[in-house]
Amino acid sequence: MTPALDVADLVSRAREGQPRAVARLISMVEDAAPAMREVTAALAPYAGRAHVVGLTGAPGVGKSTSTSALVRAYREQGLRVGVLAVDPSSPFSGGALLGDRVRMQDHATDPGVYIRSMASRGHLGGLAWATPQAVRVLDAAGYDVVLVETVGVGQSEVEIAGAADTTVVLLAPGMGDGVQAAKAGILEIGDVFVVNKADRDGADSTARELRHMLTLGSGPRSGDVDDPWTPPVLKTVAATGAGVDEVLAAISSHREWLARTGELASRRRARAAVEIEAIAFDQLRARMGDLRGDATLDTLAAQVVDGALDPYAAADSLVEGLTA
Amino acid sequence: MTPALDVADLVSRAREGQPRAVARLISMVEDAAPAMREVTAALAPYAGRAHVVGLTGAPGVGKSTSTSALVRAYREQGLRVGVLAVDPSSPFSGGALLGDRVRMQDHATDPGVYIRSMASRGHLGGLAWATPQAVRVLDAAGYDVVLVETVGVGQSEVEIAGAADTTVVLLAPGMGDGVQAAKAGILEIGDVFVVNKADRDGADSTARELRHMLTLGSGPRSGDVDDPWTPPVLKTVAATGAGVDEVLAAISSHREWLARTGELASRRRARAAVEIEAIAFDQLRARMGDLRGDATLDTLAAQVVDGALDPYAAADSLVEGLTA
Repeated sequence: MTPALDVADLVSRAREGQPRAVARLISMVEDAAPAMREVTAALAPYAGRAHVVGLTGAPGVGKSTSTSALVRAYREQGLRVGVLAVDPSSPFSGGALLGDRVRMQDHATDPGVYIRSMASRGHLGGLAWATPQAVRVLDAAGYDVVLVETVGVGQSEVEIAGAADTTVVLLAPGMGDGVQAAKAGILEIGDVFVVNKADRDGADSTARELRHMLTLGSGPRSGDVDDPWTPPVLKTVAATGAGVDEVLAAISSHREWLARTGELASRRRARAAVEIEAIAFDQLRARMGDLRGDATLDTLAAQVVDGALDPYAAADSLVEGLTA
Repeated sequence: MTPALDVADLVSRAREGQPRAVARLISMVEDAAPAMREVTAALAPYAGRAHVVGLTGAPGVGKSTSTSALVRAYREQGLRVGVLAVDPSSPFSGGALLGDRVRMQDHATDPGVYIRSMASRGHLGGLAWATPQAVRVLDAAGYDVVLVETVGVGQSEVEIAGAADTTVVLLAPGMGDGVQAAKAGILEIGDVFVVNKADRDGADSTARELRHMLTLGSGPRSGDVDDPWTPPVLKTVAATGAGVDEVLAAISSHREWLARTGELASRRRARAAVEIEAIAFDQLRARMGDLRGDATLDTLAAQVVDGALDPYAAADSLVEGLTA
């Protein structure tokens, strides 16, 4: 079997809903396999249909439970859901279901749900680079909603979550002070805010403080001036499912707003531009690496040492050579 | 006065030994001034004559005192000496003599000595990038020896010191255990090892342990198989000048060895290659940055969003566009 047939076959089987084919494709993009380029090309025509929802928040706010509750609610609407659980701190990856994700097990036998844990490994750029590729796999495989759950609130996780169409920021009473949220940079990326564990003391004051912080910002952060999006602040008890339907409705409203204002297309274009740049930069870096020990670079270096050429002029020649 | 005349004039005045012109040129390379390219080109014909000596070691081993003692010894030989004191942890820079470098003040009125502190600022890549440029200024200005003293033993300081023709690694009794040295990666970069403060207890055992560690390495680390360099381990009391002449003699022997074996030329070519690559990479990065908001990238991104193009094909177009 030639690799070309293999990739086309995998994509076709993934689109038929075969989880093994989906898993194989994600592993390929995660490892930046040599066939990566071919995989991306084969997926491109089918991508762009799914709504990509990011979920982020500090440890302990109940992200896994919330993800599980959202998946259940989407399934009740008859939608297929793909979940990427991104954990930059974990060396484990690749399984369709990890031991610590037992709460997701009620979806394990549901063919309409695909769950994958992703961890940092291999490719330079790591998760920030691999996650959008894995999203494309699930999107092309026909999942209606792709949930990207990120553990932690580091800058890279914020970037990963922020690459979604709609970003849901989770907080919990007592730990989710507005100031903390502002520090973590999550006020800027949230399209929908959810105070989970709302049956605990302090949920109302956390929600109030959050609304206050949001109004302190410089107006609506994006979108049409005449049709701005004001991020709602909702309350849930994910463990019981209370309030989850309202979160789904808010995500849905946001999606309608994105489409109505043209913001969806412009966000996706901006993300595609970043992705194209990253790939182009990688290619140039690889070409540069190939020149190590190359006769051209050696010759240029010798001329610089002799004072016959200055390093800038030599760099010009190198760039010309790269691009010839 | 046109910038072109200005740079040529500065270089000519620096070569006449005017410290203000030298200072101005170093500031220009340190700030990566727009005229940087022109400065580098104007200096290139005059560079490559100085012997560049790196001095590194952990805080407290007596680097400033040792530098001062080496400068004094070189001056007794009638050689002109340029000193770059590189401190990545200091936000201060640009002065010819900083307050904390009072021990160098006995050279302050000597026109045969130029002393400059450099600190991290401005340009991406920072000191690792700016230091070789500043070395080139001093080299072209006619200093016979350029001493590059680095504070600290972090990876970047090791790289800076390792970019010298001859690297002197300083240790002190009791703190400079061989294991520590091995951990810091300085065994690999040292051409000459000096146990300073040799009047203290433990100097002999530190020197012995160091010699032992050096023999544990995989033979001579560089050079001709038939004419290898074995790094000597010397002892000094820099504060009194004891042993300093032996250090100078060892540096001199190393320089002769470098010239005899062709290692000098090959080290300088390797360094030039790294420098050329860094400049070329910078240029490509800048061109990439210019494309943000550019119609080409926007168009490519829109095609990727529509599924008409995959990101790799778009990156190919971008790279082609960069290099057209």
